[in-house]
Parts: sequence; C-alpha cells; structure tokens
Amino acid sequence: MSYKFQAGKMYRMPTHFGPSLGPRQGEGGRKYDNLESPKMTAFSVSFLSNREQLEELLPEGFAVGAEPVVTVAIQYVTEIEWLAGHGYNTLGVSFPAVFTGKKDHVTGNFLTVLWENLTDAIIRGREELGFSKIYCEIPEPRIYQGQTHCFASWMGFKFMDLKIENWKQVPAEEVSSAANKQNGDGTLHYKYIPKTGEWGKADVAYAVLTPYDIPNRVVKEMWQGEGTVRFYKAAWEDLPTQCNIVNTFHNLEIKEYRGATMVKTTGAKDLSDQRILQ
Amino acid sequence: MSYKFQAGKMYRMPTHFGPSLGPRQGEGGRKYDNLESPKMTAFSVSFLSNREQLEELLPEGFAVGAEPVVTVAIQYVTEIEWLAGHGYNTLGVSFPAVFTGKKDHVTGNFLTVLWENLTDAIIRGREELGFSKIYCEIPEPRIYQGQTHCFASWMGFKFMDLKIENWKQVPAEEVSSAANKQNGDGTLHYKYIPKTGEWGKADVAYAVLTPYDIPNRVVKEMWQGEGTVRFYKAAWEDLPTQCNIVNTFHNLEIKEYRGATMVKTTGAKDLSDQRILQ
Amino acid sequence: MSYKFQAGKMYRMPTHFGPSLGPRQGEGGRKYDNLESPKMTAFSVSFLSNREQLEELLPEGFAVGAEPVVTVAIQYVTEIEWLAGHGYNTLGVSFPAVFTGKKDHVTGNFLTVLWENLTDAIIRGREELGFSKIYCEIPEPRIYQGQTHCFASWMGFKFMDLKIENWKQVPAEEVSSAANKQNGDGTLHYKYIPKTGEWGKADVAYAVLTPYDIPNRVVKEMWQGEGTVRFYKAAWEDLPTQCNIVNTFHNLEIKEYRGATMVKTTGAKDLSDQRILQ
Amino acid sequence: MSYKFQAGKMYRMPTHFGPSLGPRQGEGGRKYDNLESPKMTAFSVSFLSNREQLEELLPEGFAVGAEPVVTVAIQYVTEIEWLAGHGYNTLGVSFPAVFTGKKDHVTGNFLTVLWENLTDAIIRGREELGFSKIYCEIPEPRIYQGQTHCFASWMGFKFMDLKIENWKQVPAEEVSSAANKQNGDGTLHYKYIPKTGEWGKADVAYAVLTPYDIPNRVVKEMWQGEGTVRFYKAAWEDLPTQCNIVNTFHNLEIKEYRGATMVKTTGAKDLSDQRILQ
Repeated sequence: MSYKFQAGKMYRMPTHFGPSLGPRQGEGGRKYDNLESPKMTAFSVSFLSNREQLEELLPEGFAVGAEPVVTVAIQYVTEIEWLAGHGYNTLGVSFPAVFTGKKDHVTGNFLTVLWENLTDAIIRGREELGFSKIYCEIPEPRIYQGQTHCFASWMGFKFMDLKIENWKQVPAEEVSSAANKQNGDGTLHYKYIPKTGEWGKADVAYAVLTPYDIPNRVVKEMWQGEGTVRFYKAAWEDLPTQCNIVNTFHNLEIKEYRGATMVKTTGAKDLSDQRILQ
Repeated sequence: MSYKFQAGKMYRMPTHFGPSLGPRQGEGGRKYDNLESPKMTAFSVSFLSNREQLEELLPEGFAVGAEPVVTVAIQYVTEIEWLAGHGYNTLGVSFPAVFTGKKDHVTGNFLTVLWENLTDAIIRGREELGFSKIYCEIPEPRIYQGQTHCFASWMGFKFMDLKIENWKQVPAEEVSSAANKQNGDGTLHYKYIPKTGEWGKADVAYAVLTPYDIPNRVVKEMWQGEGTVRFYKAAWEDLPTQCNIVNTFHNLEIKEYRGATMVKTTGAKDLSDQRILQ
Repeated sequence: MSYKFQAGKMYRMPTHFGPSLGPRQGEGGRKYDNLESPKMTAFSVSFLSNREQLEELLPEGFAVGAEPVVTVAIQYVTEIEWLAGHGYNTLGVSFPAVFTGKKDHVTGNFLTVLWENLTDAIIRGREELGFSKIYCEIPEPRIYQGQTHCFASWMGFKFMDLKIENWKQVPAEEVSSAANKQNGDGTLHYKYIPKTGEWGKADVAYAVLTPYDIPNRVVKEMWQGEGTVRFYKAAWEDLPTQCNIVNTFHNLEIKEYRGATMVKTTGAKDLSDQRILQ
Repeated sequence: MSYKFQAGKMYRMPTHFGPSLGPRQGEGGRKYDNLESPKMTAFSVSFLSNREQLEELLPEGFAVGAEPVVTVAIQYVTEIEWLAGHGYNTLGVSFPAVFTGKKDHVTGNFLTVLWENLTDAIIRGREELGFSKIYCEIPEPRIYQGQTHCFASWMGFKFMDLKIENWKQVPAEEVSSAANKQNGDGTLHYKYIPKTGEWGKADVAYAVLTPYDIPNRVVKEMWQGEGTVRFYKAAWEDLPTQCNIVNTFHNLEIKEYRGATMVKTTGAKDLSDQRILQ
C-alpha cells in the first residue's frame, strides 16, 4: 500500500519518509522553544540609496517606504534547536517597503535576497516561508584591531566585503528602545514557485509577511559603528547562478552611509506566524 | 515603478533581479547544448529488497514495478555548461514503479531522494522539476587496489558507504544494448510544495516524469563489478534534518545484491521535457 | 645575485621570499601584542588512565608525572592578530610528565599531539616550536539542551566525540585560583625532523618546553561540568595517515572521569619564550 | 618505560605513536608500488620572465639556468596509494636553475613554492623531502567551451587564475619525446628548518634534489594550448601568511608566454631517491 499524508502534519520533498523535519516540526511533531537559543551575532551596514533603483526591485503591489535606505545584514547563528545545536550564517539585503493588496496594507522591510550557508535551512525557508534564500559561503568574520570584516563568496569568487569600525557600545538602558526602533509590521517577501513543464508560468506567486514580533528574543549587547559595504562586479563566468543579483547591488547608488550596528541576541521564534498577504 | 514579469521567461526566488539563471535558461534567455559536456562518472549498486517496504515509500497513484530492486547511484559530474564549467556530485536511491493517473499510465524508476552537494542545483531541481533533492557532502571517491569507495556525510556524520570491486569492462559492442536495458518511460518523482501559514496543506502536489531519452548522452565506457552499500543508523542528533530518510534505507531489507556498474558518459539534456503526470 | 638571509630575521620554507610571516614575526619584523585578543573558548575532559600505557608514549628522558590523568582539550580561537583576525581550532591530548635532561629538570603537561584545522598554524608550530601538530577537521561545537558536543574528523571519518553537560559556573572570586591550579613549568614537547635521504635518521631531535606563564591571558569565564570522550577505532583505510595515533587513544584505559571544564579567555603570548631542554 | 626509536624506521612528529605513516613508509613498514596509480591531470603555463627578478629568488649556490622561463603548474591527483586512494591537488612555480656546491653540480627546475590542498602531504614533503610546500585551496578546474580555468585561494581570497584554451592533442608518436624534453637532473629545492628559541638561526639548511627519473610514470595523453596566468596583488590582510609570496609573483615580469600544456599520467615514485646536495 502506498503511504497517505497524515492530516495536520507538515511535509516537504521528499514526502515519502513521513512528516518533514525542520524548524516548525521536529521528531514526532514536537515544537521547539527557542527560548535561550539560538545565539546570534548580527552586523549591519545601512546606506541611503536611489529610490528609482529600489522600486525596480519590487513586485507588483509593493512600493518603496518612507526613505530608500538599504540595509545589508550578516548574521552568525549558533545553538539552533532544530539543527540539534549546529549553527549557520546568513546575509540579507533589505529596504523599507509598503504592500497594498486587496485586503492587506502592511509596511516593513522588504528582504530582496537572503544568502545562507546551509542548504537545509534554505530549502525550508523558500518552500515553507517564501524567503528568497540562496546559497553562498559565509565564513566567520575577520576581527583585527577594532575592525570587523565580514565577507561572502561563491565557488571561490568573493562577491561582498562589509567592514565596520569605531565601535561604541549602546548603554544598557538605551538598548531596548534602540532595538525596537525598527518599526513596521515585519519583513516582506514574495514567494514564487515555477510550474513544471509550463516554463514561464507559476505554481505559486504571492506576497508573504513575517510579523515583526519575536517575544523570546533578548538583546544582550548592542554596538554602533561606522561601516562600508562593497559588492563586486561579477562576470557570468564568476557567478553563473547569481551574477544578476550581485551586479544589481554592485550598481546600487550609495548616497551616504547611515551607520552600522552589531547586536548580540538569544532566543528566536519558529516563524510559524508567517502568513500570506492578500 | 515595480517590475513586471517578462512573458515567456522563467523565474525563481528571488524574482526581483530579472529572469532566473539555470540549466534551462542562461543569460539573455539562451539555451545550453549539453553536447560534449557535462562529463559524468556514475557508480551504482543494486539489490533485491522487500516489496512491502518499498510500497510504503510510494505516494498514492504509484505501485512497485515488476521487481523490487533498489539502485543506489552516485554520480560525479564535471564541465557543466550552466555552471560555467563547474561540477557537482549526486547520490540517488530509486526502484521500479508504475504510475496510474487519470490520463497517464507510465512506468519507470521512482527516485525517492537525490542528495546533491551544490545548493544551486538543488533549488532548481526541486522547484522547477519536482526532484526530491536535498543536500549532503559527497567527496570524490577513494580508489585503492581495485576497489572504489564512495561515501556521503552531513555535518561530519558519514551516513553511507558504497564499495565496488572486481571490475570488468563491458566490450564496446555490448555497451549500447546494456546502456539501453534500463527500460520504462523515464524517472518518476512527486513534487510537493507546502502552503505558507496553512501548515499541513500544500500549494503544489503532483506526480512528475523525466522522460527516458537523452539524445546527446554518449556512453564512453561501461564496467560491471560487485558491490555493497550500507546506510548507517542515525540518531536525530546525528542527522536532525534527514535521519528519517537515512534510517529508512538503513532498515531496508537486502535480499541479494544484483551487481554494480560504472558508466562514463558525455552529454546531457536540460530536462525541459520534464512534465506533470495527470 | 642570489639572496642572502637577513641577520636576526626568522625564516621558514620557502625562504626565497624574504623573512617569514607568522605569530612571532609580522610584516617588517613587527611583533604582535596579543593583548585583548585572541579570544578562546576551550573545553576539556580529563580521565584517570593507565600509567603503563602512558609511559609507552614518552620519549627517552621523560617519565609520567604524579598521576596518570589524560586531558583532551579542544579550543575554538578567534581574532588572531598574526592571521589578520581570522581564527582556527585545536584538539590536544596531554598528561603530566617529568623531563630529566643533562641540565634541565622540568615538570609539566606532555602534549602528545595537537590537531589543528589550519595548515599555516601547523607548519609554524611544528618547525619553529616543536609542537606535534597535525591536521584534522574541527567544526564548531553542537550545543543543544545543555549539552556541548565537540567532534573531529579527517576526510569524512569522524574519529572523536567529546560531550559535556551539567555545567556549573565557577564563581568569579574562585576563577583565578582555579585557573592557576594547573601547576608545573609548562607544556612539554619533543621536536623531531627527519634527515632527507638518510631515511630513519634525524636532522633534529630534542625536547622542548613552553613555559607556563601567559601574562596577557585573562580568564573571562570558567565553568565545570561532567564529560566523556570517545576515540573511534580506525582501519588504515579510514585514517591512512593517523590511524596509529587515533587507535592508541581508542585503546587507552579510562579508569574514571575527572571532570570537564569550559574556559573563555582573552589574550595570549607569541610563544617566543619556547626553549630547547637539555 | 619510555619508547625507543626502532632502528631503520622513519619517524615524524608526533614520534610517540610508532614509525610514521606516509608515502615512503606504510603500515608495518611496507612500500607503495605507485604502478598504475596515482592518476594525474597536470596543467601548466610558461612565460619568459626577467632574469634579475628570478635571481633574487635563489639561495646561495644557485644561479638561473639557460633561459629565465617560469612555469606555473597545477596538478589534480587521484588514487594515491599512501592515502588509501584519496587524492589532492598542487600548484607550483618553478624555473631553470643550476646548483654548484662543494661536490655537486646539477641543473634542473628550481621549485620556489608548491601549494597543496592537503596538510598531511605538506608536512611530509617539507620535513622529509625539503619541498617548500604551503597550503591553499585548489578546487577542481572550471572547463567551459574549450577553456580550462584553474584557480587557487586562501581563506576566501582568490590569488591566482590560470586559463588555457586552443587545445591541440600531441600525436601519440610524439608524446614520448615531448614528455622527455624537460631536461636537467631533476627538481631543485632548499630545505630549511628554524632552530627553536634561537630565533633567526637554523636547525637545518641545505639544498636538495629530486632526481628526474620516474620509471613508473606513463603519459596517457598530452595536449598543447595557449594560456595565461595572473597572480593578484594581496594586502597583508588578504593573505597574512603568504602575501610576500603571491606579491612576488604578481610583480614578476611576463615578457612573452611560452605555451601551455595538459598532461594525463599514471604512476609515480615514492621520492625516496630525494637527496641532499653538497
């Protein structure tokens, strides 16, 4: 007898080995607390860019938010429960946007792409959540004489350098308000899955929201600094699967830098509050 | 102005940087020939297994084929055009199956899972083709005193050893018939994409066929040998994202080995003939 | 004109590109402070073993110290100045020993082997310092529900698991005395370089001492726990370059565990006080 | 009782676990045949350079040979017996030189540096043979539309690109003479081991020769093409352990290219004929 999908259980390819294992469903269907872990060290650099360039990166229904400020954020995450305590790293590029649908009107940060260095996380994020996750190498940062240097590459081609220095710690009493400054309803995405065989058509195409609130997240430290970020021009031969993405960022105007931050946090959520926007 | 999808072009997340780059669509929409390349060295070991165990791995509409023979195939591929000449490796587990739908009745090898060591290929294969691709490390084989040893691991946990020895080359005049022995309509898959937010429901769920024919593929050498394959029992801590898969193979009955092969080929197809079964 | 060695400068193969770059000599001959960095997180598990087995691991002139307690220590190091801020990890096995030479009589921990995951550090340590450094993969630890799991492998063969749990932090006021408990003169090594062409003869063979004191090192946190360590039996095919080492540890008697520790430190020394024992 | 060195056996740090394992001494002291294996694919690009620049790379006793032609050679080696069938890759830079000692007068190719991507091989080559081996990442080549692209990096900084195209196979009857064209007595090296504690002094410093003859090596295929090679300028931060080496090659004059080759071979020798020059 062929198998049947169990009602109420999550599945993912391959579906043949029972309910899927991942951040939102563990062995036997159990949930993860994400209470004291994962631990995250996140660096970001922001810059004022060109509103017209950013608009071209938005699908229908979206518009650039109040200010065309791009944030490049790189996160080094450890002690992840659904990975039995392993970690992985991410690199994202986002800017403020507004989504207006038939029902929903939400504001937030539009996450254009999120590189990660672990395929298992990429697959789950794309298919379950609609995050635009793709792969690259994200080694640990190089920290020397007060300068933090984060970088990313693909098959040996380094496509990004992010450097921050002149670090100043944010006093404990100001951390909470600074951490919550990042207003809006959450993070905006656009989920798209192509239809097999009918090339150019879609099986899935809808806007998605990651609600802002992460109740378990505790900010342990916050620092501010001055930073720069560079994306390098890539020939197709250098990055045959993502030169279009990297070159778009290479060509993005940097009008002025808007500061850099480092945040150390514990706790997370399993993102099961992710929802389709209509 | 937000962007519009170009008619007739293929897209994939992130859709914001123009038409996607991949095996079926290169820069400016060009196609790849796959004429003299890629180059592939493929090893496989087959064994007679238990029909009931295999049936439990089949979604509705599928049944086990004539003989419950499982094939574990590992492929080392180089000179891939859409990767600008880079390569990657794969490890698949399949067995004969029959699909009976409302319109289609096809036979072939049901590919239960295909591990690959390159995320870019995994994403494209899952979303565009419906292949059940997931990630693992697949280093180059170890070849010593007539024995070929292929292996695979995830985050340092080795979950499979495949060993072949007593190699005998198939005479050139017999290669063509031996290569075409693998009858049926092609390779069978089940594409499944979960629906965001409505956990347990699907956005996409359909059977898919990779038609058998690969006109450009030329078999350069074929060898036969004797081989064994072992999947190791994994605790959840060892393989938190795929212990269910590896343990299923660990528990699969091996009634008798049915030989091992090595095939060296050139040429491929872009799989744009992949089609949904109904 | 061929080049001449500059007097007073350190060299290493290849000597043809000027004075060497390393922990004890930077660009233009500058020294490194190692004041606030590197940062280190070190885990260790100790066990009472068999005195006779340990004696067999000691070169002439050495004897096992007061108690045959073996310590397996794994260190994750970041922000290393001579690496421009990169880091690397190490795994060492040591036990107390006494060296009696013609002039010197010293006690300390005899470091039988030190695995590291960075070749540049291995070469420098072997040739300049006489550390018995060899290579293996040492990924970041897996930390899950209060258990820390450290592991090491070579070409996909995992040869060691070290697990610690039931962590209790050592109160700040006791850290200093606990950190200095590790008495003796320092770490003992045996440097040996074979003579080219006269196989079986040595170019270099002498005992070496790393003096105990590290003035810049500050212990930031100290924890105690309960731990176990396992070395796995390796066939020659599994570890063709180091099965003799791993199997020796696999066969080592574990009479009883003697606790486990975690220490977080900043600061180091450049080890230029390393000296030959006579 | 402490251990004693066994007479006639080779040792290497750590010496405490019995005779060493390596290319020239296997388990129980056995030798390796290297008859049908390893298999090697070697690419090289040569160029006429500046005699004065090359002279500055030679230790005392050496002079540049007939023509100041530099060869950059990259080798992808598999099925290595002493590694139980694993492989590794190398990247070397050499030019013709003459050594005149008290006894010896030999000509050959002076190997200034040999990068390898396997530490186990690097340690053995440095200490036993006097090869100037250091580490870098050497991924498999990228081969696309008739162009072969080899590259090398260190911690994500790509320092070399080597590209060859317009390949023409050398007819079988000319391979033997072409393969033996490379005259001279062998490959020249300078072995140097620093003395511990007396910084700037040497424990070992002598010239070494790898005799030319490799009786077991069979050239299976030889191709000629047109190639270029680029070493990239590195800041100390990019390559803190080897910027001096890479920048020397970056600054090397390229007067004209002298062709490129690809050679596929089987067989090797264990290099136990390596000898000190006097």
